Amino acid sequence: MPEAVETLDGWYMLHDFRQVDWTAWKKASTEEREQAISELNHLMASWQDVESDKQGSFGFYTVVGHKADLLFLNVRPTMEELTELETALNKTKMAEFFTQPYSYVSVVELSTYMAQGKDPDTDPEIQARLKPILPKWNHVCFYPMDKRRDGDDNWYMMSKEDRGKLMYTHGMTGRKYAGHVRQIITGSQGLDDWEWGVTLFAHDTLQFKKLIYEMRFDEVSARFAEFGSFYIGHRKEREELEKVMHV
Amino acid sequence: MPEAVETLDGWYMLHDFRQVDWTAWKKASTEEREQAISELNHLMASWQDVESDKQGSFGFYTVVGHKADLLFLNVRPTMEELTELETALNKTKMAEFFTQPYSYVSVVELSTYMAQGKDPDTDPEIQARLKPILPKWNHVCFYPMDKRRDGDDNWYMMSKEDRGKLMYTHGMTGRKYAGHVRQIITGSQGLDDWEWGVTLFAHDTLQFKKLIYEMRFDEVSARFAEFGSFYIGHRKEREELEKVMHV
Amino acid sequence: MPEAVETLDGWYMLHDFRQVDWTAWKKASTEEREQAISELNHLMASWQDVESDKQGSFGFYTVVGHKADLLFLNVRPTMEELTELETALNKTKMAEFFTQPYSYVSVVELSTYMAQGKDPDTDPEIQARLKPILPKWNHVCFYPMDKRRDGDDNWYMMSKEDRGKLMYTHGMTGRKYAGHVRQIITGSQGLDDWEWGVTLFAHDTLQFKKLIYEMRFDEVSARFAEFGSFYIGHRKEREELEKVMHV
Amino acid sequence: MPEAVETLDGWYMLHDFRQVDWTAWKKASTEEREQAISELNHLMASWQDVESDKQGSFGFYTVVGHKADLLFLNVRPTMEELTELETALNKTKMAEFFTQPYSYVSVVELSTYMAQGKDPDTDPEIQARLKPILPKWNHVCFYPMDKRRDGDDNWYMMSKEDRGKLMYTHGMTGRKYAGHVRQIITGSQGLDDWEWGVTLFAHDTLQFKKLIYEMRFDEVSARFAEFGSFYIGHRKEREELEKVMHV
Amino acid sequence: MPEAVETLDGWYMLHDFRQVDWTAWKKASTEEREQAISELNHLMASWQDVESDKQGSFGFYTVVGHKADLLFLNVRPTMEELTELETALNKTKMAEFFTQPYSYVSVVELSTYMAQGKDPDTDPEIQARLKPILPKWNHVCFYPMDKRRDGDDNWYMMSKEDRGKLMYTHGMTGRKYAGHVRQIITGSQGLDDWEWGVTLFAHDTLQFKKLIYEMRFDEVSARFAEFGSFYIGHRKEREELEKVMHV
Repeated sequence: MPEAVETLDGWYMLHDFRQVDWTAWKKASTEEREQAISELNHLMASWQDVESDKQGSFGFYTVVGHKADLLFLNVRPTMEELTELETALNKTKMAEFFTQPYSYVSVVELSTYMAQGKDPDTDPEIQARLKPILPKWNHVCFYPMDKRRDGDDNWYMMSKEDRGKLMYTHGMTGRKYAGHVRQIITGSQGLDDWEWGVTLFAHDTLQFKKLIYEMRFDEVSARFAEFGSFYIGHRKEREELEKVMHV
Repeated sequence: MPEAVETLDGWYMLHDFRQVDWTAWKKASTEEREQAISELNHLMASWQDVESDKQGSFGFYTVVGHKADLLFLNVRPTMEELTELETALNKTKMAEFFTQPYSYVSVVELSTYMAQGKDPDTDPEIQARLKPILPKWNHVCFYPMDKRRDGDDNWYMMSKEDRGKLMYTHGMTGRKYAGHVRQIITGSQGLDDWEWGVTLFAHDTLQFKKLIYEMRFDEVSARFAEFGSFYIGHRKEREELEKVMHV
Repeated sequence: MPEAVETLDGWYMLHDFRQVDWTAWKKASTEEREQAISELNHLMASWQDVESDKQGSFGFYTVVGHKADLLFLNVRPTMEELTELETALNKTKMAEFFTQPYSYVSVVELSTYMAQGKDPDTDPEIQARLKPILPKWNHVCFYPMDKRRDGDDNWYMMSKEDRGKLMYTHGMTGRKYAGHVRQIITGSQGLDDWEWGVTLFAHDTLQFKKLIYEMRFDEVSARFAEFGSFYIGHRKEREELEKVMHV
Repeated sequence: MPEAVETLDGWYMLHDFRQVDWTAWKKASTEEREQAISELNHLMASWQDVESDKQGSFGFYTVVGHKADLLFLNVRPTMEELTELETALNKTKMAEFFTQPYSYVSVVELSTYMAQGKDPDTDPEIQARLKPILPKWNHVCFYPMDKRRDGDDNWYMMSKEDRGKLMYTHGMTGRKYAGHVRQIITGSQGLDDWEWGVTLFAHDTLQFKKLIYEMRFDEVSARFAEFGSFYIGHRKEREELEKVMHV
Repeated sequence: MPEAVETLDGWYMLHDFRQVDWTAWKKASTEEREQAISELNHLMASWQDVESDKQGSFGFYTVVGHKADLLFLNVRPTMEELTELETALNKTKMAEFFTQPYSYVSVVELSTYMAQGKDPDTDPEIQARLKPILPKWNHVCFYPMDKRRDGDDNWYMMSKEDRGKLMYTHGMTGRKYAGHVRQIITGSQGLDDWEWGVTLFAHDTLQFKKLIYEMRFDEVSARFAEFGSFYIGHRKEREELEKVMHV
């Protein structure tokens, strides 16, 4: 039996994707629409306050394609807070015009090798990575993934050393994109349907493609990665909600 | 042909997941909502009475993410009782505001090695595990699973001895989480779409992730486990129904 | 090319699963509900008459879980009769409150070895099995299945002799459950999406689990069986329709 | 690189499956229903005229099970004609009571070995097979399929000679059913989601099962065939539309 | 670790598939329908203006089968422009009668070997291919695809040289169809659910089938290609919108 990876675990993330029922939205009265926007704006403001208080983080994004229209991305110390804010959103006026085609719940995860010789509970860099404030970069890319367990390509049957080598090389590929792509890795074994979530941030959407294409040639991806759906969002200020929803 | 595992079988469980149609719920009159809450409260009280009479068990949970909003978890001596209480829920006023995105039916299963030298029909520990009262811990995690039958990774083609060794090691991993995670294993061969259901209870959701991540490196999981969707719920008292449904 | 199995083929079966729209059903007037129950009762009575005339067979079941609420199981000499009675059900008042989440069409199939030295067209035992009257046992279990064709585990590339040996051992496992489980095997190659349907009957639902779990260790299941969804139903008398639908 | 198979390509086929919303249909006024039947009858008559003019072919079928209720099968020299007649159906009154759960577009395909020593553009037998008039037999069976490309079972990596041998044997199996089953093979690489469509016609539905079961033991099916869903339909005269839709 | 392919990346493409709710469309008043057509016509005219200004490209197509009715195909320098025009379409009157069953976002991708000895930023041929104007040919074929990573058939574990040879042969097959089929290859690693999109244009739909069938025997397809759904569309002038939507 190979030795398990030890991880450091931080805050929880909820990727909450919503689709707009534009027909119903347009049929609503101006008053209803104003009320819905105002209430959601208020809710988002409260989520920004949590970020200001360093008790979590929040991002709002428009999403390309048929898979979703909007992404509300929240980070919190506990999962139950995320369940509650998801329910709070469900209960808003605006949610009467939303469906929820997808969501993902996971927890920020760092390898313990990050912490060598440091106290993860106090080291500022580790703490900043465990309790991340979402970068205010233009675009976000989210996808869930598994490590393959298939015949000779079984990640969990490899030695810790071999896994470490492959992950190191993979990390080197990622490092080439420093300044272009930032990433938050979250673990979701036992929490959601895939083993990890990957959330990337970039100023230029092309960097997502370049990074992920290049990484696919890393042995750890080529032989061991199984990917879910990919979602691309464009960051919007809270104040842009009205413009986004304008009909 | 390898020798089959003998099992002890106990009470049946029904995981009944429900999604709330918040828009319709808000459009209902205050009176209708009060009536719906009161009736469901009454039904849940009757389920709690069954637990008090040691004729079954009941838990009520809110669920994170798009897969469900609520989980009603019932345990009964027979499957037909579960079918009947599911129908009773379907016929409530509240169910007019619910859909049922998922459910799972299975029966509590123990390995016979548990019973060595004991009479399973009278031994109190075995009886307690076969007829479980759901722990009143904060969180629940449910997922269904199969044992893989794929080329060289075919669980059902292994000798009973080899299967026993792998399960023993797996059990040792689980034991490390004693006091942190409690589990109920249920069998569903011939009853539902996967071979087993796993229901975990914890005070801290992170323990689900830690346990399941660590277990994935056990050979029995790495080579032989196929997983369905994972659902996380937060335990609510019956009296909290009104708060959960408050709009 | 291995030699194909010769089969004896009998009557056709239609497993017609229905889900009840309880909200709409409750919103219907008492008059409408009475009319719907009466008309469906009448239709089911006509199906029972066919059974009395030995021109087919009929069973009515409530189903556990989200996959369906009801199962109407009909057996007829021709498939077209089944298509017609399915349409007749679709046209009833009651069907306005039903959806049809699943169905399965197949034909009773016996191995020719059954018929050794007998004339299958006149032998009473063979005739009874080819034109089955559904047992009036408490519970039904239905699932469709394929024989695997994957690399070295390719059922259709094995010799008839080897297939015969595996099926014989499998039959021995089944025989242990005589008196506890009765089964009807139906073939659906070219008729529906899987190669076979299996319909089991028992007085105790646990027998389904025990039989199917034990059989999974038979090489023919371990290496060659691919399973679809499993459905469990509880037999109801026609007269119980009113009770089942009571709101 | 193995040598590609040369094909002769003929007319295009559209399998257009429809489901009836019986509840809405019954709620329509008698006038609306009469109008809908009359208009669809008229449209189907125009499709029959195309067949009379030898510019295409048309068949109308009722379908068993939950996958569809009706099949409109049209054959035309160009795909654009099929798109247009599908849209014409969509625009009818009757289509207000239909959904379209499935469809398949493909083009009649013959192997060039058919044409040895003949001019496919003028040979009457080849022309008749490339521009087929649908047989007026009682039942139809449709399924799409792929040739497998998996490890050692990769159809497209085999030599043309080896593929030819397997197809020849397969053809011999088919020939045993002459007079019982007629088949139209259509190619859909690049046109729809599978590589081929198979449309079978028989007077007795059991012949579909017998043929497909027997063929599954042919190496070309056992090792290389991947199948989609199977649909069975019963041929109806245009004049029977009123009876089919009678409520 | 094999060396990654370097790519040249150009404009982004959005394949936006829509389904028409013909029942609702017919129930709309003539005035509403005229308004919806006029507004969408206007929007499409603005997209054509972008093409005239060489700042993007646009095509409008009717689609065969149940998967979609219409395809709006837009090309733009940035992904955010595509998200915005998709939202603009969502907000039109016409979109009240549309659903969006599928979409695909990707970016035009050329191999760097195209650029040998040329400056890709100024070379007119390379620029024309990176910023494509959609051919005004009669038909379009779209499908997404992956390169397989399965056991010995793992594209991303091959040497750059071996990949290059296979791609070269594949390109030779494509070249035979010069004048019959034009293709735009787009990359979508990290942007959408498959690794590439392929968009083909032809005057005759049969050319799609011939090309894709022949290519399937190329080792790069036979061993390494995994395909999504195939969509066929017929090009319409903007002015034909009224005819397409006429009821």
